[in-house]
Amino acid sequence: MRSDLIRSIILKILSLPIEILSMLNEEKFMKAAIALAERGVENGEGGPFGCVIVKDGKIIGEGYNKVISTNDPTAHAEIVAIRDACKNLNSFQLEECEVYTSCEPCPMCLGAIYWARPKAIYFGNTKEDAATIGFDDSMIYDEIRADLNVRKIPAFNILRKEANATFVNWNERDAKKHY
Amino acid sequence: MRSDLIRSIILKILSLPIEILSMLNEEKFMKAAIALAERGVENGEGGPFGCVIVKDGKIIGEGYNKVISTNDPTAHAEIVAIRDACKNLNSFQLEECEVYTSCEPCPMCLGAIYWARPKAIYFGNTKEDAATIGFDDSMIYDEIRADLNVRKIPAFNILRKEANATFVNWNERDAKKHY
Repeated sequence: MRSDLIRSIILKILSLPIEILSMLNEEKFMKAAIALAERGVENGEGGPFGCVIVKDGKIIGEGYNKVISTNDPTAHAEIVAIRDACKNLNSFQLEECEVYTSCEPCPMCLGAIYWARPKAIYFGNTKEDAATIGFDDSMIYDEIRADLNVRKIPAFNILRKEANATFVNWNERDAKKHY
Repeated sequence: MRSDLIRSIILKILSLPIEILSMLNEEKFMKAAIALAERGVENGEGGPFGCVIVKDGKIIGEGYNKVISTNDPTAHAEIVAIRDACKNLNSFQLEECEVYTSCEPCPMCLGAIYWARPKAIYFGNTKEDAATIGFDDSMIYDEIRADLNVRKIPAFNILRKEANATFVNWNERDAKKHY
């Protein structure tokens, strides 16, 4: 019993440097994301949001919000960073990657993260913090959770049969590639 | 009472051509979205999804899924079409526009649509149809609805105070622009 306890204490002490190093790394990458958010604000390119994508301890993609400067409502920091990282990796997947974003992702960006499949997300500001400076991500979260027929932007289902023919066509192909 | 009934019937008959025309227009634009989906399948560029954006009865932006061909997990039909339409309008908003998409939007695309703020969405296939050919949008819907601590991709909140300084900096600026 006693030797078990001593062994466990020794292991704990030995693993401490790794834990501290890992924590310092996490903070380093989050600070890089925050610096990008700051740069976007200085440049007046969009909202105060930055993001870096990390693989094997290295930044492989980055971005900050460019909605205003590029007239692109999808140019949120995470989307810009994901596109940059995928281009650099030559892949549409971010396997074994981590996403460091200066703010909790909005539903669009969270969706993009799920499609890219990284292994973890680190965020600085919460979506409640975003709401306090006028970014109402929570409205979009509510809308996505709501049924189609009660949403603020009305949605209509038409020509389902015609649209489905393309699905059948695609599904029957041997060469189809999933993503 | 009787004259009211006759009046209402006459109004109904008079409005019929407008309703039929509107319905035909909706079908025309949905067919354009389906044709784009078909083109993407033929080219082998990604999944079987197409989208057009319409303003004042004219197509002002279009896209089809290019996830595979561009190595971009965000290159869904709706995102490609929104970026195209915004570029053509020179605006990050799609006011008074309609989105015609060959399939019910995934959470990422629905989020993008909310940020772009069109007035209506028309879709062909449902998300259940997408699931039958292997596109598991419903998993992402479930994840977005779930609390942070039970999601498949773990998320960690770090350096909130440091990240918040950028929000304060941005919020104090007179020149900040909302989107």
